[in-house]
Amino acid sequence: MSDALLDEFRKVVGAAGLVTDPQRTATYLSDWRGLFTGSALAVLRPASTHDVARVMEICTRANVAVVPQGGNTGLAAGATPVGLSRAIVLSLERMHGIRSLDAAGFTIAVDAGCVLAEVQRAAHDAQRLFPLSLAAEGSAQIGGLIATNAGGTAVLRYGSMRALVLGLEAVLPDGRILDGMRSLRKDNAGYDWKQLFIGSEGTLGVITGAVLRLFPRPRARATALVALACLDDAVALFGMVQEALGETLSACELFSERALALQCAHQPGLERPLAAHPWYLLIEAGSSLPGLREALESALATAMEHETIADAVLAETSTQRDALWRWREAITESERREGPSAKHDVSVAISDIPAFVSEASDAVEAAFPGTRVLAFGHLGDGNIHFNVLLAPGGNTASAQITAVVHHIVARFRGSITAEHGIGRYRRDDLVAHRSQVELALMRAIKSAVDPDGAMNPGALI
Amino acid sequence: MSDALLDEFRKVVGAAGLVTDPQRTATYLSDWRGLFTGSALAVLRPASTHDVARVMEICTRANVAVVPQGGNTGLAAGATPVGLSRAIVLSLERMHGIRSLDAAGFTIAVDAGCVLAEVQRAAHDAQRLFPLSLAAEGSAQIGGLIATNAGGTAVLRYGSMRALVLGLEAVLPDGRILDGMRSLRKDNAGYDWKQLFIGSEGTLGVITGAVLRLFPRPRARATALVALACLDDAVALFGMVQEALGETLSACELFSERALALQCAHQPGLERPLAAHPWYLLIEAGSSLPGLREALESALATAMEHETIADAVLAETSTQRDALWRWREAITESERREGPSAKHDVSVAISDIPAFVSEASDAVEAAFPGTRVLAFGHLGDGNIHFNVLLAPGGNTASAQITAVVHHIVARFRGSITAEHGIGRYRRDDLVAHRSQVELALMRAIKSAVDPDGAMNPGALI
Repeated sequence: MSDALLDEFRKVVGAAGLVTDPQRTATYLSDWRGLFTGSALAVLRPASTHDVARVMEICTRANVAVVPQGGNTGLAAGATPVGLSRAIVLSLERMHGIRSLDAAGFTIAVDAGCVLAEVQRAAHDAQRLFPLSLAAEGSAQIGGLIATNAGGTAVLRYGSMRALVLGLEAVLPDGRILDGMRSLRKDNAGYDWKQLFIGSEGTLGVITGAVLRLFPRPRARATALVALACLDDAVALFGMVQEALGETLSACELFSERALALQCAHQPGLERPLAAHPWYLLIEAGSSLPGLREALESALATAMEHETIADAVLAETSTQRDALWRWREAITESERREGPSAKHDVSVAISDIPAFVSEASDAVEAAFPGTRVLAFGHLGDGNIHFNVLLAPGGNTASAQITAVVHHIVARFRGSITAEHGIGRYRRDDLVAHRSQVELALMRAIKSAVDPDGAMNPGALI
Repeated sequence: MSDALLDEFRKVVGAAGLVTDPQRTATYLSDWRGLFTGSALAVLRPASTHDVARVMEICTRANVAVVPQGGNTGLAAGATPVGLSRAIVLSLERMHGIRSLDAAGFTIAVDAGCVLAEVQRAAHDAQRLFPLSLAAEGSAQIGGLIATNAGGTAVLRYGSMRALVLGLEAVLPDGRILDGMRSLRKDNAGYDWKQLFIGSEGTLGVITGAVLRLFPRPRARATALVALACLDDAVALFGMVQEALGETLSACELFSERALALQCAHQPGLERPLAAHPWYLLIEAGSSLPGLREALESALATAMEHETIADAVLAETSTQRDALWRWREAITESERREGPSAKHDVSVAISDIPAFVSEASDAVEAAFPGTRVLAFGHLGDGNIHFNVLLAPGGNTASAQITAVVHHIVARFRGSITAEHGIGRYRRDDLVAHRSQVELALMRAIKSAVDPDGAMNPGALI
C-alpha cells in the first residue's frame, strides 16, 4: 500500500482508526467459523458517518475495494476479504452509540456498530423490548445484523431483522450519504430503498445507522418441552398451539432424539428431561394478559388426549425454563464435540417439514453410509438446520452431501439459506438454486447501486 | 392503434381479453377519486401469467407503455394512463383465482387479480385470518394492494402488506417471468427482489401472483371509545394500553371532536356516544386468551385515575362495537358531504403527533382564514389523515394548503404519504420531499429494472 494512500486514510480516521499491524489485523481477516482467511491493505475504523463517507470517496478514487465488517460473527464469511488484491476492511466498531430512545413512540436510533446486547439492555432499561435474540448477541452489531437480515429465536412472533427496521442511514460506494433515519411506521413515499440494503451483505454500500422498533415487554411467560412420535405430529401441534395461544406464541423449536442423546453423551451427569421419543418441540409464549400458563397447559392436555403428543413438561420456575432452553441451545456445541459435520441452513413451507426431513435424511444416510443426520431448528419459521455428522474416519467430502440436501430443498421450493445468508460460503450454491431471471435481476440491482463492483467483491453475487 | 397490433394482442388474450369500445374502457381510464382521466390504445385482460408475459413481449417490441391496473381503488391515481400517446391498460381482473391454501402452514397462494374480500373469506373458511382490512376491500385486488403496500386498520398489529407477502410472481417489462412463489418464512438467498415490487406502483413490472401469510383467528375481542382532553394524553394512553394489552392491541384510531360533530350534523338522529371532548381514541384488541376485556377495562380505569382519559365506553355487544367503529369509518363520507377539502395522508413518529397536529393546524388556519382542519387516522401507526375543509365560498387553492402542511411534515422528518402512495397525485411532492441522493437511487433502481421506461410512465418517479 502506498504511503500516500495510507496518509489520506489516516487524515480521515486518525491514528486510532487505521490498523495495519498484522498482529492486530488478523482477527478482522478470518471469519467466525475459521473457514476463510483473507488479506487487506488496512483495517479502517471510522468514528462517524461523515468519516465513512470520506473513506468511501478515497476508495472510489483509488480503486480500492471495501469489505464492511460488524461484529464478524456471521456464519457465511460475508465480511472476510478473500482473494482481493486491493481492499480494505471497514469496521464499524467505533460507531457504537445509541443516538436516541423514544419510549412513548416505541423506537430506538443507533449507530451501526452498536452491539445487539447493548440495544436489548437500553430497551429493557426503558421498560421496552428489542426482540431480536441470537447466540452471538454479545458481539454481533446492528449494522451486520441488518446487512444479513438476521433471524434467531424470536422470529416466529417478531419477525427477522427486516421487520424491525423503521429507518436506515447508509453510505453509497461513491461516498454519498443516504439519510433515511425516519421513525415512521408507515411510509409509501417512493421506492423503499432501505429494503435493498437489508440482507445485501455489504455489497451495495455501508450501513451506518438505523431506527429500530421496540415492543412492550411481555409480563408473563410459559415454556414447555414436548415429546412427539413423528414430525407430522409436530406440525399438527404447531397448528393447535397457534390456535390456542395465537399472538403470544414466540418460539416453537424443534430437535431430534439424536440431538438430545448427543448432549447427554457429551455432558455426563445431565439428566434427560423426558423419556426418549423421536422428536421434541420447545414451545414458549409470552403475554401481557393473565392466563397464559393455563392456556398452554390446556392446549397440551387436549393434544395429549388426541395422542398428538407423547409426553410434556412445563417449566415451573425460570431456572427450569433456562434448563429446558439449554437442550435447544447447546446442540451446536455438542455437535462440534462429536466431530466434523456438513451444515445446512434450509427452509421449506412449514407443512413440508415432515416430508422434507424424511426424504433428505433417507437420501443422505443411504448415499453416504455412516453419516448421521442431526436435524433441529425453528419449526415455526420452516427453518431446519439440517446438519450431517460425517462418518468417523470416512472421507466423504461435505460438498457432495450438500449437493444431495440442496437438490431436495429445490424440489420443495425451499431456500438453501434461511437465515445465515450467502456470503462467500454459499455463493456457488446461490447460482445453482435461483432461476436465471432472478439472478439477472440481482445483478442488475448490484450494477445499478455499485457500478464499479467495489463493495464486498466475492460476497453474495 | 394499428389493426396488426390489435390482432397480435387478440391472439394472446382472446376476444374477451381485449376491450376497445369507449363505453367499456371508460371505467379503466379514470381514477377512483375522479381527479384524473387518461386514454389508452386498449384495455387488455389476460387470463394467465403466461399471457401477461406474451403481452409484455409485444409491448416491448411495439414500444407501447403498460399501465397495470387492479381494482382501480387507489387514491393516488397510480393506475390511470394520463398523458400517454401509446399505452395500454393491463387489467388483472380475469386472474382472480385462489391457487392453494395451506391451513397447517398458515399460507395462501393467489392470483394478483383476486379481490381482498375473497382472500379474507377463504382464510375464514379455513379457520384462519388474513388481517389486511380497508374500506375498498370488496373491490381492491391483491396485486394492487401489494404494488401500493396497502395499509388499513390492522397495521398496528399485523403490519402493512409488505409484512404479509411471503412469495411473489411478477413479469418484467420484457416479458421474463420472475417466479418467487415460495411459502417461506425465512429466506436469505440473495437480494430479496420481491421487496422492490412491493410498493413500486406498477413501475417495475406486473405482479401476477403472491403467497400471503395467514394467522390464527383471535377468539375474543374488546373495543372501547375513549375521550381525551389533548393529544399528549392520547400518546400517553397509547403507551399505557400497549403495556397492558401488548401483542393483542390491533387498532388505536384517532379522531377529533370536529370529526364527530360533523357526523352528527350530517346524520340527524345519530346520538353522541360520549359527551364532547377535544379528541377520541377507538381502541380494539383481540386475543386467543381469556381475560382480554378485563385487562382493557382495568387499563382504562387506571388511565382514568391518572386523569389521562376524560371518559370511556366499552362495547358490550358486537352491535355496539360496530356502532363505535362507525364513528371512525364514516368520517370520510361526512367530510365529502360537508364540502371540498385538501387531503393529506402523512406520518410522523408517534410521539411527534401532538406537536405536529398542533403546529400544522395553527399554521393552516392562520394562513387560510375560514379553513377547518379535520384530523383523524391511525395513531398507533403515526399516520394522520390531515384533511383541511376549504372555506365556504373561498378560493384557496388546495395546493397552497398542501405546501404548508408538507413543509411542517418535513420538519418532523415525516412522510407525505403514509399509506396512499405517490401515483400521479403526489409525484411533484415526492421530488420536493426526498433528498437528491434518495431520488437518484430510486431512479437508478427504475432504470435497472425498466430501462425503456415502459412501465406505468408518469407514476411514482
